[in-house]
Amino acid sequence: MLNFTFSNETKIVFGRGVQTQAGQDISQWGKKVLLHYGEGHIVRSGLKDEIIESLIAAGVDYVELGGVKPNPRLSLVNEGIELVRKENIEAILAVGGGSVIDSAKSIAVGVPYDGDVWDFFSGKNQPQSSLPVGVVLTIPAAGSESSPGAVLTNEDGWLKRSCGASFMRPKFALMNPELTFSLPLYATACGIADMIAHIMERYFTNEKEVGFSDHLCEGAIRGIMQEALKVINDPHDYGARANIMWAGTLAHNDLLGMGRGGDWASHDIEHELSALYDVAHGAGLAIIFPAWMKYVYKHDIERFVQFFVRIFGVEQDFYNPENTILEGIGRLEDFFRRIGLPTTLETAQIPTDRLEEMAKKASNNDTHKLGSFVPLGEKAILEIYKLAKD
Amino acid sequence: MLNFTFSNETKIVFGRGVQTQAGQDISQWGKKVLLHYGEGHIVRSGLKDEIIESLIAAGVDYVELGGVKPNPRLSLVNEGIELVRKENIEAILAVGGGSVIDSAKSIAVGVPYDGDVWDFFSGKNQPQSSLPVGVVLTIPAAGSESSPGAVLTNEDGWLKRSCGASFMRPKFALMNPELTFSLPLYATACGIADMIAHIMERYFTNEKEVGFSDHLCEGAIRGIMQEALKVINDPHDYGARANIMWAGTLAHNDLLGMGRGGDWASHDIEHELSALYDVAHGAGLAIIFPAWMKYVYKHDIERFVQFFVRIFGVEQDFYNPENTILEGIGRLEDFFRRIGLPTTLETAQIPTDRLEEMAKKASNNDTHKLGSFVPLGEKAILEIYKLAKD
Repeated sequence: MLNFTFSNETKIVFGRGVQTQAGQDISQWGKKVLLHYGEGHIVRSGLKDEIIESLIAAGVDYVELGGVKPNPRLSLVNEGIELVRKENIEAILAVGGGSVIDSAKSIAVGVPYDGDVWDFFSGKNQPQSSLPVGVVLTIPAAGSESSPGAVLTNEDGWLKRSCGASFMRPKFALMNPELTFSLPLYATACGIADMIAHIMERYFTNEKEVGFSDHLCEGAIRGIMQEALKVINDPHDYGARANIMWAGTLAHNDLLGMGRGGDWASHDIEHELSALYDVAHGAGLAIIFPAWMKYVYKHDIERFVQFFVRIFGVEQDFYNPENTILEGIGRLEDFFRRIGLPTTLETAQIPTDRLEEMAKKASNNDTHKLGSFVPLGEKAILEIYKLAKD
Repeated sequence: MLNFTFSNETKIVFGRGVQTQAGQDISQWGKKVLLHYGEGHIVRSGLKDEIIESLIAAGVDYVELGGVKPNPRLSLVNEGIELVRKENIEAILAVGGGSVIDSAKSIAVGVPYDGDVWDFFSGKNQPQSSLPVGVVLTIPAAGSESSPGAVLTNEDGWLKRSCGASFMRPKFALMNPELTFSLPLYATACGIADMIAHIMERYFTNEKEVGFSDHLCEGAIRGIMQEALKVINDPHDYGARANIMWAGTLAHNDLLGMGRGGDWASHDIEHELSALYDVAHGAGLAIIFPAWMKYVYKHDIERFVQFFVRIFGVEQDFYNPENTILEGIGRLEDFFRRIGLPTTLETAQIPTDRLEEMAKKASNNDTHKLGSFVPLGEKAILEIYKLAKD
């Protein structure tokens, strides 16, 4: 087990009606805030009005910046940074899902920085401080509500890159499962795939002596799959929505990954897909992760067998363990399909004529390896895209 | 699922050598500290010298108070409160296990309080603030290093009671698994039983819609049992010691219990045992929990079947589910015996002539019910003590 430091100061307030305390909570971090949100759903649902009411009641002044798109973009972040500076805003309240939160986090680290905020995503520089960010979560998926990271897309070259620092964790996250009732089934399923992927990225490690958190990760994935089928069956099932919402936080607040490190190759390989085709990140992961597994499983047969036996109940083929793994990957794909996701580029109607270009970009012309479980160069990444074709 | 708020600010620093940063970490909370510890093990092992060296290097002044006993006592806490006031101490560094940490937490809430610190444990009053507490953990068991609670014994009547408040969570916990190599096997096993009990107290709930955290709890217990057998087999197995140490924190930092509530009757019933006979808390739990299960399982057959099928792999008897449960309780007892713990009062050589007295005390003369899964009065508690006899 690796040495680690764990510290997560995000306060989670969970349950019915909790969004009404947004004003109260953010008022502890600033008297003037940026109200940051997406493309209108929170306006149509009345949630924005409810939040504004709570800001006014708490005596908090606010400036609005809506329009965050899925796979949030640098241009809006730059607009936000300027606006915050001009208006002397002290804190950011993100109302939405991972994209809105990541956009808010990016603005928050950009404001106190003299240079270009993209420096933090290109690896040129490290953020040193951040404005406080609070969250009202409406889409359980990315876990960004208590994670230290953000993912941003630079329209110049459609580069999708991530950045992280412990002080980037939101100060609080208000999580009302009822706010997710109206989330379309496809978006719900994408979120579920993202959660499972967050745990799998941590599961496939070369660290030994991680038996306790192996079991914890396995339990978490089993629990998500069980509740996922309930949500897809009845989107207004409060209990199932609540379980999925809480799972999204735990899948990515780092607790499950302590002492293990993480791989993250599948995430990086997927990012090229969603940067180019604006496919939902979760759907991209449902396509890429099984392909990644097919490419790397020989690296640690034992770990893959354990994964599929314990989580999917695959009967162990002691004579030919690869059969156990291939059967398991098939069941994982089956699960993704059952919740309505594509598992190949073909079924997602993603063209396959730019795979070489994506492999080049992901590996920065084969100068940068992805992942730590099996470090992957350009050629390996291309093979994975090919395995994802059909 | 219940509404909840989760916030845990304890910073965990985990791995080889981390105790050497004790001075650095506590210096952020006070320039003069109380160095609080137990009965000499940390003196003999050289750990105390190492901690003092790090305090001096960080420019931190210190006053020592050793002598904490297992099941920590009010008299020493009162002594600590006086000492801290007299010496103008600003923070407390607890070096030890749950007893030392609980003693430190009790001193920390007692210092700013005008009345008798026991008020917080008798229920007469609620703590309003606390001195900062830092921890160097040497015994993984109680989870007190990141929990908001403390348990204290009042020698006047041998009352063992608990108290909790979110600000009682330690500011940091330094956790080096190597420090646990020298922990005797019996103490190690007691710690393991305590961890498992902490999860079981949360598992047996009347809340519905807790499917995700059910799986998480089940995974955690399976992981602990797996690593426990490795530790008992080789006390110097770093990986197994590390897994068990981390498990002790996660079992009791509240994450596994969010939205579920908790029962805690077995803990309370056990407290009477360890208050009267000074039996180790974990050993007491290995005796009481199976007896509690035998008494209450009919209240929710389905939950108990799920528990034993999923964790212990008991084959489900669909015709007579009680058989599944009784087989499961037997396996839990087997596990406790395999790691060297007693599972009856008889094997622990605890006399059985004061069971009525303990049941009276635990229920405050039948005026106070224990637990929430099945609330238990004096008569029920007595039955559980009787079931624990042999």
